[in-house]
Amino acid sequence: MHALIVYAHPEPTSFTGALKDRAVEALIRSGHTVKVSDLHAECFNPVAGRHDFTSVADPERFHYQSEQEHAARCGTFAPDIKREQERVSDADVLILQFPLWWGSTPAILKGWIDRVLAYGFAYVDGRRFGTGLFTGRRALFSVTTGGTPQRFTKEGVYGEIETVLYPVERLLLQYMGFEVLPPFVAYAAPRVGDAERQAYLDNWEATVLKAMAMPANREKPDFSAALAAVGSGAWGTQR
Amino acid sequence: MHALIVYAHPEPTSFTGALKDRAVEALIRSGHTVKVSDLHAECFNPVAGRHDFTSVADPERFHYQSEQEHAARCGTFAPDIKREQERVSDADVLILQFPLWWGSTPAILKGWIDRVLAYGFAYVDGRRFGTGLFTGRRALFSVTTGGTPQRFTKEGVYGEIETVLYPVERLLLQYMGFEVLPPFVAYAAPRVGDAERQAYLDNWEATVLKAMAMPANREKPDFSAALAAVGSGAWGTQR
Repeated sequence: MHALIVYAHPEPTSFTGALKDRAVEALIRSGHTVKVSDLHAECFNPVAGRHDFTSVADPERFHYQSEQEHAARCGTFAPDIKREQERVSDADVLILQFPLWWGSTPAILKGWIDRVLAYGFAYVDGRRFGTGLFTGRRALFSVTTGGTPQRFTKEGVYGEIETVLYPVERLLLQYMGFEVLPPFVAYAAPRVGDAERQAYLDNWEATVLKAMAMPANREKPDFSAALAAVGSGAWGTQR
Repeated sequence: MHALIVYAHPEPTSFTGALKDRAVEALIRSGHTVKVSDLHAECFNPVAGRHDFTSVADPERFHYQSEQEHAARCGTFAPDIKREQERVSDADVLILQFPLWWGSTPAILKGWIDRVLAYGFAYVDGRRFGTGLFTGRRALFSVTTGGTPQRFTKEGVYGEIETVLYPVERLLLQYMGFEVLPPFVAYAAPRVGDAERQAYLDNWEATVLKAMAMPANREKPDFSAALAAVGSGAWGTQR
């Protein structure tokens, strides 16, 4: 089995980095293969724009989904996006590793999501959720936060972690068709001691290997067939 | 009264741009003042890093909150962050105008949130929610989405819009102390006709003016006093 870890942290020696390293070691030791998209190290540009494409559908007006559809049909995504899309379609299991910043993904990861998971690659009209292009694949995310577990409860000030992570789980991963495993959350990461830190790393390793052990749909999505099946601009054109 | 509109869309002629323009016109016509942070036009860099600061707290290891606290105490935030922080503290009402991408803010806006709303400016230890530095100020957000209202219901595939926007409303705006008004959502924006488009613009204008008409706490937060009141590294240091 092959995993892709999309890793978003500016500091290699961070605990987020340690979780990423532990997953890589465990996967290799278990005979799996793994690729890491280290967004900060690779200087990934998170800003959406015409630089996403080597083609132009409408030079007058930039409509993002129209340009994404055009690039998907013509194979004209920019090299950085093409590279990341290949990494995603090669992966049996997709792992997002990030610190929870303002209740969500850091901007560099959100930009990876916005730009790489484009119309015509991540979804097409009528191919979402149960009929999503990545149905049968598995995704999980691993999050670090300064917040304590008590704060992430129904009564806590932050609310339940499932509610906080809902947009990523439901409107991104499940939307694409992924089977999303329960999130791994390292609470109070800046505050816990070494023993708890080690326990988090051990639990994360077990979680990752469990995800890999389960069978997955290993067929790559047929993006061109999915695109051919839908008309152009099926999502409408904002004016 | 003075408003700040943080606007995130790559295409000026988009409907998101039209909503921003309508708000600006209405505010000026009503005798208010308004500033727009046009993130794409201003080439805002959403990636967090040492370039956020003109000072260094720890040259060995980059711990974001430590560097933010150091910059807040020394007044050494980078010029782009300092400029945006001044815009935020000058505003009686903060308006976020963005298209819903993957159930959240576009990366360029998330990066504005990550970098500008720094420790020591947006919050300090013990000054969150009811005791937040922006208590008494008002915030509202205006969102465009291709999704229909039916999809954003408890039974709909996307779930209730309040759940989707929860992280922004609760873990960002309310966290900072803002009184958050109900979100304005332009559903199915790429699909509706001109009449519905006009109705959205008129409703948005009414929403914005209503927000400005209500009394607000106009005192600027005393960041240095708040910082002086807490010890250094109160949030812990991730290792």
